[in-house]
Amino acid sequence: MCRRHTRRGRIVATAVLTSQAENFPAWYQDVVARAELADNGPVRGTMVIRPWGYAIWELMQADMDRRIKATGAQNAAFPLFIPMSFLEKEKQHVEGFSPELAVVTHGGGEQLAEPLVVRPTSETVINHYFAKWVQSHRDLPLMINLWNNVVRWELRPRLFLRTTEFLWQEGHTVHATYDDAVAETRRMLEVYQRFMEETLAISVAVGEKSPDERFAGADHTFTCEALMRDGKALQMGTSHNLGHSFARAFDIRYLDARGHRRYAATTSWGTSTRMIGGVIMVHGDDHGLRLPPSIAPHQVVVMQLGEENEVAEATERIVAELRAAGVRAHADTRAHTSFGRRTVDWELKGVPVRIEVGARELAAGQATVVRRDTRTKRPVPLDGAARAAEGLLEEIQRTLFEDSRTFREQHTHPVTDLDELTQRVGDGGLYLAAWSGAEGSERALSEGTGATIRCIVDADPPAPTCLMTGEPAKYTVLIGRAY
Amino acid sequence: MCRRHTRRGRIVATAVLTSQAENFPAWYQDVVARAELADNGPVRGTMVIRPWGYAIWELMQADMDRRIKATGAQNAAFPLFIPMSFLEKEKQHVEGFSPELAVVTHGGGEQLAEPLVVRPTSETVINHYFAKWVQSHRDLPLMINLWNNVVRWELRPRLFLRTTEFLWQEGHTVHATYDDAVAETRRMLEVYQRFMEETLAISVAVGEKSPDERFAGADHTFTCEALMRDGKALQMGTSHNLGHSFARAFDIRYLDARGHRRYAATTSWGTSTRMIGGVIMVHGDDHGLRLPPSIAPHQVVVMQLGEENEVAEATERIVAELRAAGVRAHADTRAHTSFGRRTVDWELKGVPVRIEVGARELAAGQATVVRRDTRTKRPVPLDGAARAAEGLLEEIQRTLFEDSRTFREQHTHPVTDLDELTQRVGDGGLYLAAWSGAEGSERALSEGTGATIRCIVDADPPAPTCLMTGEPAKYTVLIGRAY
Repeated sequence: MCRRHTRRGRIVATAVLTSQAENFPAWYQDVVARAELADNGPVRGTMVIRPWGYAIWELMQADMDRRIKATGAQNAAFPLFIPMSFLEKEKQHVEGFSPELAVVTHGGGEQLAEPLVVRPTSETVINHYFAKWVQSHRDLPLMINLWNNVVRWELRPRLFLRTTEFLWQEGHTVHATYDDAVAETRRMLEVYQRFMEETLAISVAVGEKSPDERFAGADHTFTCEALMRDGKALQMGTSHNLGHSFARAFDIRYLDARGHRRYAATTSWGTSTRMIGGVIMVHGDDHGLRLPPSIAPHQVVVMQLGEENEVAEATERIVAELRAAGVRAHADTRAHTSFGRRTVDWELKGVPVRIEVGARELAAGQATVVRRDTRTKRPVPLDGAARAAEGLLEEIQRTLFEDSRTFREQHTHPVTDLDELTQRVGDGGLYLAAWSGAEGSERALSEGTGATIRCIVDADPPAPTCLMTGEPAKYTVLIGRAY
Repeated sequence: MCRRHTRRGRIVATAVLTSQAENFPAWYQDVVARAELADNGPVRGTMVIRPWGYAIWELMQADMDRRIKATGAQNAAFPLFIPMSFLEKEKQHVEGFSPELAVVTHGGGEQLAEPLVVRPTSETVINHYFAKWVQSHRDLPLMINLWNNVVRWELRPRLFLRTTEFLWQEGHTVHATYDDAVAETRRMLEVYQRFMEETLAISVAVGEKSPDERFAGADHTFTCEALMRDGKALQMGTSHNLGHSFARAFDIRYLDARGHRRYAATTSWGTSTRMIGGVIMVHGDDHGLRLPPSIAPHQVVVMQLGEENEVAEATERIVAELRAAGVRAHADTRAHTSFGRRTVDWELKGVPVRIEVGARELAAGQATVVRRDTRTKRPVPLDGAARAAEGLLEEIQRTLFEDSRTFREQHTHPVTDLDELTQRVGDGGLYLAAWSGAEGSERALSEGTGATIRCIVDADPPAPTCLMTGEPAKYTVLIGRAY
């Protein structure tokens, strides 16, 4: 139930959204639909990203793109269609992706001699070109990033979180040494972590994936894991050290400074529209989305209440002042829509700050500033309204991040007993446990608890012996149920 | 043959590129390869856009995106896969696109119940959603733009010009009245024309397409046609008035202010990576690309000649000064590559201005500024080098446009005799002719001359009777061979 208020404070309860407590998945679906973020495509598992959702993605893209370019990577484009034979060159890779492939068998009215795969990811095709482009150690490192769409057949689709087609960036790099590839993998993990924390205001746990969760063909996969408000984890981005596997499969070799021919080492790393799902489920509340100002298409909406000239002028003036200060401001001048409906709209869409401008306050030289995160209102002098809103944006960005960090910390528990984990994990949260790394123990964990190792973390194990096997502990891991 | 010069003016002739006069198509291929713009994909007709080519595309995108958003359109994303049944809803549309479709028949390891088309364009899927989103006249106009990839099977592929997969923007709008759709179609044509003239520095002829050249399903198609240096035309962008065809096929209706249910009218408009081919063939010369500064990834390259400290410092200082002025500047500090090779590289890549900084000039308080368009060098005082380069950028942008306009005007000829046209058209150029519009006359023209009507223009016909049929003239058309 959502409180829908009229202009003068009368509160009308209307069922705008299912509440999070009542049914979290239904709440998620409601927010995605009501905030006009996305819609199901006509083909099962595909997605229409509506203008509000896409504008959020554009802001995320622009920010991430700057960070990626700052590392020295350059953007490029590679083909959507990949010959099936390319995928087959790296054994683990094709095994991992085969069940998810979409295959083109006909083109230009004829059956094709070789079926084409719609890219599920671009390692195979890009490494084919890397082999042509890399000749000497002077060509290294070679760092390429792609913004594109990929297809992985999805049996249990969910908008943003699991879709057959999704938008993402995939980075691919080639290095002279294995160590350089390790360093790049870690550097991009850090780029991702900073993006998630600074831009998305989402606190994440970072660490290496266990073998069962590794990317198909990688030596090491690192991940950023966020905790959603329902206690489930979401993998928000991954960075893979591909070592020499793809370089051998595609024959990427270079002449080193001494004239020896050597195999290069490669990496890949990616983040996708899935992160929008993370933003919804980390920051959203029973009234809709709460957008971090950094990715809010409208950071401030100035609501003109009433059609009096002076109200219209004051609205315009505040919007102009905000824009001059570099704030993404929008004037809501709708005269034929009720105040309650307009308020609910902007709350659903997660606009960080609203400024309400009406004749009564105007007469008192005031406007009302409303924070979306805390849903608190306060009157401010009209002249200072734009500045007040601007100051709030920074505060809201910080508050959302702090809330996310506190929530993750409060829902991360050490666990030393498998029965306890089994009982508690269904309620959500992340569990810090000691792990031996023994083969088969991951599968046993997931079959017994429905949870998985989200990542290996850099922390002391809570017990000397493995939670699953009782053997000596080698790693500290974070365990949880995940999207 | 390209003149390759050493630092001190010695000129060495090396065959960097085939010359335009010798073999224009080979010249084009050479430029695309040597300027590292693109490469053929592994699947026939597909394309790898390399970092230099993609950086140009990003600058074009950013500029076009601003122009499109300024019209009130919003970006969104629609699915890559479209059910075959959607295409079949608009008869002319499916007939037009059927021969070019790529079809997915298998997904997730199973044969699909209904084959999926990889979008050749998105009218069908987007109009399906427009029907859901448009209810009232208050929802109109609805203006959506997509930046994505589309696939049209291509039997005679050519990098950028005709590729099976290409990147583009496609705009789709819904309007209350047919007249509103006409106005939108014309407005976007003008947006495109201004983009091509102001940003790409390419002069274009604009006008309506004749029936044989219309978009499949459109009532009217408008086009921007540019003239390449080999005298062939290139269609650079099109804007379609779809009238009521798609609204009827997809049932897009709305309640007007009086409560009557009416069919909406729709438009679509698109420009693609093909425009990069136009930039190459309009501005390029025997030394490579000549980029308009507005889309040059490096607008100025400052070449450090020699490793002396003061040379390195002067290089850095100039780059910093340029960047502070908002110029995209790059320092070329390569010590192990010959001066000649470095110069040839930047000429091939079309960098508008180079500044050469060496010890000898430095001692005289000077640097050398080189224009790519005219290939002229002049010494400038070191302190004024950045400012001089900055001033040149505006001049080069203007000069390239003026050159393109002069070239198009000089190669546009009125023609009143079909034999004359048949004889001359093979040498290239555009021909202004009188046309009756009679059915069948377009096909006869193309069979007889290998040329087509590029567009109907707003000009007096050069003769009272049709060039093809001798009937009274109704239109003035531009005729030419085209890519």
